[in-house]
Amino acid sequence: MTISPESTRVGFIGLGIMGQSMAGHLQKAGYELHVYNRTRSKADALLQGGAQWHDTPGEVAASSDVVITMVGYPADVEDVYLGSDGIIDNAAAGSYLIDMTTSEPSLAVRIAEAAAAKGLHSLDAPVSGGDVGAKNAKLSIMVGGSEADFAVVRPLLDIMGENIRLQGGPGAGQHTKMCNQIVVAGNMLAVAEGLTYARKSGLDPEEVLKSIGTGAAQSFLLNGLGPKMIAGDFAPGFFVHHFIKDMTIALKEAEAMGAELPGLRTAKGLYEKVAGEGASEDGTQALIKAYD
Amino acid sequence: MTISPESTRVGFIGLGIMGQSMAGHLQKAGYELHVYNRTRSKADALLQGGAQWHDTPGEVAASSDVVITMVGYPADVEDVYLGSDGIIDNAAAGSYLIDMTTSEPSLAVRIAEAAAAKGLHSLDAPVSGGDVGAKNAKLSIMVGGSEADFAVVRPLLDIMGENIRLQGGPGAGQHTKMCNQIVVAGNMLAVAEGLTYARKSGLDPEEVLKSIGTGAAQSFLLNGLGPKMIAGDFAPGFFVHHFIKDMTIALKEAEAMGAELPGLRTAKGLYEKVAGEGASEDGTQALIKAYD
Repeated sequence: MTISPESTRVGFIGLGIMGQSMAGHLQKAGYELHVYNRTRSKADALLQGGAQWHDTPGEVAASSDVVITMVGYPADVEDVYLGSDGIIDNAAAGSYLIDMTTSEPSLAVRIAEAAAAKGLHSLDAPVSGGDVGAKNAKLSIMVGGSEADFAVVRPLLDIMGENIRLQGGPGAGQHTKMCNQIVVAGNMLAVAEGLTYARKSGLDPEEVLKSIGTGAAQSFLLNGLGPKMIAGDFAPGFFVHHFIKDMTIALKEAEAMGAELPGLRTAKGLYEKVAGEGASEDGTQALIKAYD
Repeated sequence: MTISPESTRVGFIGLGIMGQSMAGHLQKAGYELHVYNRTRSKADALLQGGAQWHDTPGEVAASSDVVITMVGYPADVEDVYLGSDGIIDNAAAGSYLIDMTTSEPSLAVRIAEAAAAKGLHSLDAPVSGGDVGAKNAKLSIMVGGSEADFAVVRPLLDIMGENIRLQGGPGAGQHTKMCNQIVVAGNMLAVAEGLTYARKSGLDPEEVLKSIGTGAAQSFLLNGLGPKMIAGDFAPGFFVHHFIKDMTIALKEAEAMGAELPGLRTAKGLYEKVAGEGASEDGTQALIKAYD
């Protein structure tokens, strides 16, 4: 199969903050879109742009040559792929399935096996870069699957991201994303604790950021979310509850490998604390609330 | 006082990895240097360049208009400034004293008080950017002291760094450096744990770095020390034992402020573990050994 706007119908399931931007780029590139989302109103802009609505993931799959999913939790991924009215049961043989949700590596392997048994091609391809990366089509995309399948879907991934790498067989994309989230968790701890010290020691945290944002402490998150922590701006780019989901997967996988990751465990505990105190729908910068 | 290579004699005490580079920049800029170091051989290059050797910190101070110190531990700072044959007792009234060691904020305050009592001007001005920043004169310099004193010594700081900020009164430079080191500690945890997961999950850590080094996980340390962790290259840019010193100060100060910083505490514990197993003179990337 050769993918092109002229010949390829693309299904997109999951139109949250990230999914809306990503699907929008495909639509702008000229692809015929078939969409489904739990909350239909989130599809409005895409439908106005010509996308076709379907009532179930299975209907999307039946109308598409490539199906992309960007849903919330592993349970949603399982439901959308393996459930009744799901993708696997309804996609035509030869279709390509790309799960871009951050989900469990072991589930990616199960989906790949179920897909192969039906003559379908499946890849796991979670992303990093957040809402801003999705909006600007600058996502990093970490892919697990076969080299042949990766080569086929590459033109679609190129429209949504810019650092796109096959990391290994089924599940390798998810494992790579877990590495990413483990680093993010530690970096968030770092930013929250550094700024907490700044505040408590009587310094001006904004001035501190200007000093420490250019040297060895520099990170995407220090300079991106540090100012929001200082300003008390907790508007979500990436939800606390989604990040807890990711850390839960990473910690479970790490335990299964016999890896003890105390930094990740500490971050997860603090995020669960702030979520329990009402910050679940905040952005991840709400970690600073754990230090009040 | 107006500082210039023609009129200003600069004392430099502490010629380790950082100090040698920093003093070298001042020498290249034309300043007459007066130096002391515990191990004399580390002064060889500067002496060949025309610097004058002295046998004690006090002798350096007596021969200098500005004295810069870049020693190891707070105990060294205390000794060099407040000890017998020290700077405070031997500097001529009106001299400027700049401690660029990472040291205790409370000690910086004590030195500032002792200096003021003798008509000396003192600033704390620790740096970030590591050996590479020192070599390339791209250090971030965080200063505590008076605005007037900061303005006077600024020409010297400009020769050694490029992000130079007065953060407040005496001790504010050290407090800002503590913020920096707290962020560094979390970021190091992050890198070590992300790469440990990569290795244990069977991924190629170098490929993982290429995927995660551009998105939300991006940091100076991920891209700078991650490759060294993967390669098992533990040559020191910044010593483990110096970093433990910094984290010990930060944790003690945080406790005094009533701030609980579990990420910092976790990082310090892991560093103490690898130091106890022989990595004390390694670079800080040796944290990865804690996860073997």
